[in-house]
Amino acid sequence: MDFTPPNLDYAEAVRASFANQAMMASLGATLETVTPGKVTLALPFNADFGQQHGYLHAGAIASVLDSACGYAAFSLIPEGAEILTIEFKTNLLAPASAKRFDVSGQVIKPGRRIMVAEAKAESDDRRLIATMTATLIVMPARQGASDAAH
Amino acid sequence: MDFTPPNLDYAEAVRASFANQAMMASLGATLETVTPGKVTLALPFNADFGQQHGYLHAGAIASVLDSACGYAAFSLIPEGAEILTIEFKTNLLAPASAKRFDVSGQVIKPGRRIMVAEAKAESDDRRLIATMTATLIVMPARQGASDAAH
Amino acid sequence: MDFTPPNLDYAEAVRASFANQAMMASLGATLETVTPGKVTLALPFNADFGQQHGYLHAGAIASVLDSACGYAAFSLIPEGAEILTIEFKTNLLAPASAKRFDVSGQVIKPGRRIMVAEAKAESDDRRLIATMTATLIVMPARQGASDAAH
Amino acid sequence: MDFTPPNLDYAEAVRASFANQAMMASLGATLETVTPGKVTLALPFNADFGQQHGYLHAGAIASVLDSACGYAAFSLIPEGAEILTIEFKTNLLAPASAKRFDVSGQVIKPGRRIMVAEAKAESDDRRLIATMTATLIVMPARQGASDAAH
Repeated sequence: MDFTPPNLDYAEAVRASFANQAMMASLGATLETVTPGKVTLALPFNADFGQQHGYLHAGAIASVLDSACGYAAFSLIPEGAEILTIEFKTNLLAPASAKRFDVSGQVIKPGRRIMVAEAKAESDDRRLIATMTATLIVMPARQGASDAAH
Repeated sequence: MDFTPPNLDYAEAVRASFANQAMMASLGATLETVTPGKVTLALPFNADFGQQHGYLHAGAIASVLDSACGYAAFSLIPEGAEILTIEFKTNLLAPASAKRFDVSGQVIKPGRRIMVAEAKAESDDRRLIATMTATLIVMPARQGASDAAH
Repeated sequence: MDFTPPNLDYAEAVRASFANQAMMASLGATLETVTPGKVTLALPFNADFGQQHGYLHAGAIASVLDSACGYAAFSLIPEGAEILTIEFKTNLLAPASAKRFDVSGQVIKPGRRIMVAEAKAESDDRRLIATMTATLIVMPARQGASDAAH
Repeated sequence: MDFTPPNLDYAEAVRASFANQAMMASLGATLETVTPGKVTLALPFNADFGQQHGYLHAGAIASVLDSACGYAAFSLIPEGAEILTIEFKTNLLAPASAKRFDVSGQVIKPGRRIMVAEAKAESDDRRLIATMTATLIVMPARQGASDAAH
């Protein structure tokens, strides 16, 4: 698998795009590390995003897993290109009851047009909370983000 | 398929549980209709939950799709029982660019232990934005919500 | 959604490609109807493709669901183009115990590059046996089937 | 994660059940290794189970991935219990063009009622061909396989 980023400034590009995801800021998620084909994020517990039993809502976890997959793929695209998630599947393995969640996303199949990434969320006491597999499409630089309808 | 709710007060039970999902309030999602095995929700666009291009983040859409599946199933469980999502899969079909999204969830396979539900999100101009299939487990009343680890 | 087939001979093209799927012949699956964006197939029970309890193996059902999704999408592509399944997700709702299964596949999101289709398998006594959602990629005619690695 | 098999004869039980899956014999799949929570299988290429371009049909790959997930979970259940797959999701990462595929399945979340397993298929030249995540339900021994409808 070729994890050589075509964009030498891939880490900067990932950080700049992540900073534009208002959802991540609203959830309090932070981008921790960026390496070719892999990113790690952290998500603090926030009762505002809870479900009916006080755990974090599966959708909050899925949001961060999705961004983890997306930015893992984003680290491998040319400058000016964009990434869109086509689909994702997540398994919820344990209640999201921790104070903090460590989330990592990793490309398992790079590609010029389609990428596949996996992510997982672990609680701060190292329980596996959720996993995700996501399929992503690369939007070439010349088309840009405005051609989002695939 | 048996869509006779064992809980005569199923609609009230759904509304009470939904009101306890802080995530839904934070997103601004509202529960519109509740019928046996089916619920509809509405989600307004909110830039606080956007992604890098200003569309709603896929995780925000997935959160509401997940709750739609969950409460569709919740409408068919005995009083005092609980529902947990085991897994879901969502396809993102068009950019989430509308002012308002109509989300409906529907049980396609009722069961005493396992239920399967489907949900979809449409923009206010009737574009299909996203679909979800979710698998849910019924936690019997005697065990209660505290036995969340399956 | 645009279900106007760009290939006027779409039905013939679907039938010709289906006839080349040795897997379908081995399973005994037949292509019943082809309309724009939708196909129906039939699958007889065959103990050779059973699982440990004598029901049809989930993989046999998934094979036909996958082909149903694939040919639903194939009916909407230009002449000479090809379709590849990127991913699918299937829910197994009831034991595959019937003598015959009716399988239908339908595009829910057409696209020049990416399509999404859904399929379902019903037993001959009208029980819903399994559902599938599949994501497919269109390989343009000029590239052909040999550029299968995406 | 507790990977202590409650059935001391777990490997024998896995092998006996696998031998009853006619589908595996028809595909030519063999059970290679069985350890707690993990199995490996081998699948030879067989043109009888091909798709329209001569590669192995995704359904043939999915069948073996499903059995790999199922028997990984089966290795962790009490004597006399059964395992049923509720749902699976598979990503097809490269054309299934090899002479032989090595398939491994591994439980990532054991449980008394619900298990989650992952599997992957690699070609004999070590390309990652496909991945699967599966959710499985444990049918207790007293109920047996006849109570298959969940």
